[in-house]
Amino acid sequence: MMTTHKKDPAVVVIGGGTGSFMLLGGLKEYTANLTAIVNMSDDGSSTGKLRDELGVLPPGDTRRCLVALSRSPKVRDLFDYRFEEGALKGHAFGNLFLAALEKLTGSFAEAVETAGEVLDIQGHVVPATLDNVRLRLSWADRQVVLHGEGVIDAERFRYDPRNARLSLEPAAKANPEALAAIAQADLIVLAPGDLYTSLGPALIAKGFSEALENTNAHIAYVCNLVTKHGQTDGFDVAAHVAEIERFVGAPIVDTALYDTGEPRTELLKKYAREGEFWVAPGRRETLDGKHYRAIGGDFLAAAASAPAKSDPLALRRTFIRHNADKVARALLSLLA
Amino acid sequence: MMTTHKKDPAVVVIGGGTGSFMLLGGLKEYTANLTAIVNMSDDGSSTGKLRDELGVLPPGDTRRCLVALSRSPKVRDLFDYRFEEGALKGHAFGNLFLAALEKLTGSFAEAVETAGEVLDIQGHVVPATLDNVRLRLSWADRQVVLHGEGVIDAERFRYDPRNARLSLEPAAKANPEALAAIAQADLIVLAPGDLYTSLGPALIAKGFSEALENTNAHIAYVCNLVTKHGQTDGFDVAAHVAEIERFVGAPIVDTALYDTGEPRTELLKKYAREGEFWVAPGRRETLDGKHYRAIGGDFLAAAASAPAKSDPLALRRTFIRHNADKVARALLSLLA
Repeated sequence: MMTTHKKDPAVVVIGGGTGSFMLLGGLKEYTANLTAIVNMSDDGSSTGKLRDELGVLPPGDTRRCLVALSRSPKVRDLFDYRFEEGALKGHAFGNLFLAALEKLTGSFAEAVETAGEVLDIQGHVVPATLDNVRLRLSWADRQVVLHGEGVIDAERFRYDPRNARLSLEPAAKANPEALAAIAQADLIVLAPGDLYTSLGPALIAKGFSEALENTNAHIAYVCNLVTKHGQTDGFDVAAHVAEIERFVGAPIVDTALYDTGEPRTELLKKYAREGEFWVAPGRRETLDGKHYRAIGGDFLAAAASAPAKSDPLALRRTFIRHNADKVARALLSLLA
Repeated sequence: MMTTHKKDPAVVVIGGGTGSFMLLGGLKEYTANLTAIVNMSDDGSSTGKLRDELGVLPPGDTRRCLVALSRSPKVRDLFDYRFEEGALKGHAFGNLFLAALEKLTGSFAEAVETAGEVLDIQGHVVPATLDNVRLRLSWADRQVVLHGEGVIDAERFRYDPRNARLSLEPAAKANPEALAAIAQADLIVLAPGDLYTSLGPALIAKGFSEALENTNAHIAYVCNLVTKHGQTDGFDVAAHVAEIERFVGAPIVDTALYDTGEPRTELLKKYAREGEFWVAPGRRETLDGKHYRAIGGDFLAAAASAPAKSDPLALRRTFIRHNADKVARALLSLLA
């Protein structure tokens, strides 16, 4: 068991699903002082059903971060187990765990803490907000509003999302524990993931802007590997960073890590058929002269591994994805 | 935390629901070497739904015994929490825990072991059988057969159950771990509870007869406080013991503990309206000359405590019930 050493840097990962999961899995080999700040606007599948039926806060992304930091393989597998039959079908067991504890104690934060004990996690998992929120994306000039993360996630936008406002409804306050972690961090990592439905929603509760501007931590963004069709078509690295900083309202990024280990052609073709493309580093001039450093490197995982059964997105994600260890080492070298 | 000492007697409790739960709660204050052997024919409510929909073994009674032995108040409350809305309504969280782990690992025994770790239990919980069984009660001479514990539990028998055969279908083998616990025990306690749907079913899997006949342990039966209408009307202490020994097929009982602390008249009247009566110790001659000692004592709990929300039977049981500590002390004095 790893214990926190004085020399362990305090690392905070902000994001939602798969990207956070990957980063936490990589970083936990290098530091025990790890905090995951988790998007709380999820309203899809098992999580959505639990929110609707029980009125609980969304457990899904929190569960995945807890699992990523768990030192107990047995309990970890249990938390990711999804029921396959009957009235429980589709529910991840860990979601039921968090939902039951929240109902029992009246506190999602307490539920997360107890889950962390049972899973014997290394580090902390902190909901971005403890308010009960839904995601909203609105184009004021077009009088178009999309409601709900599930809806926004599935949408092919008719208008440029860079002209839209991403917000939580009702307006939500950041979890004070999240703000404290940001203030005390040595390194803050913005996780790769869908800009409008995964990373973005984790940055916009009231308080994050000031905290991210005021922290002395190094802030690094691990850029997405591929674009999302209908949402970020044509976005290069700089465009991703620009959107993130628009959400926050300030130029907070110190470093953007992007992949230069171009995937194999047949994989790129496979993605292209779905309208998704490898995120190009951008022409030299788009990254030169920015307030942040853009660092390219080969961050790709080998393509062959089998998808995790518990992750419905894994099949698609398996092909072009990050190597968690390569990314973790690149991130920690920023502190050297 | 209590640890097993050389001087701790090895105590085994055999039974089903509330009676086992009460005994374990009392006995755990006096010995850390405690094993609960649990009836596995339950097919009602949350447990029944999980059996039907997921094909798992019945988690309900096992969960209650695990909870009784838990040293972690937080996790214990969680295991007893019942969802109140939506598709999960009525399910005890601990049942979902055991069901998910059984589905994940393919082994109910392994699920129980992991649950025991998470609950930090003092002692062991051992399913009476690991075969997937249903309970059956049949009157050969009447050509009447009742199928299923839920059905039998709710039935008012038309014929004397003492002429009926209680069996598991398909015929089941005792869990070897249960037989080993019986062989190594200093004291075996047969828990109070419904004869035909709680204690009886825990005694009839193949192997229990021989094990109970061959053990050097002292075998004590803690007699029910009240009769069950339509099933054990008019049964005195000796009649209860006789039925238990008929199930086992041998005169195994060394001591029967029965209550002489007669409940208050208004409580007895309340029960009488439901057809349930305090179990009379029997006329002197029915207990004299038996192969077992019948020991009377005041084993009643004060009547006032509030029913546990998580236990649907608690409201009824609250009024006339055992004081777990009084019973535990009487049981352990048998070893002195």
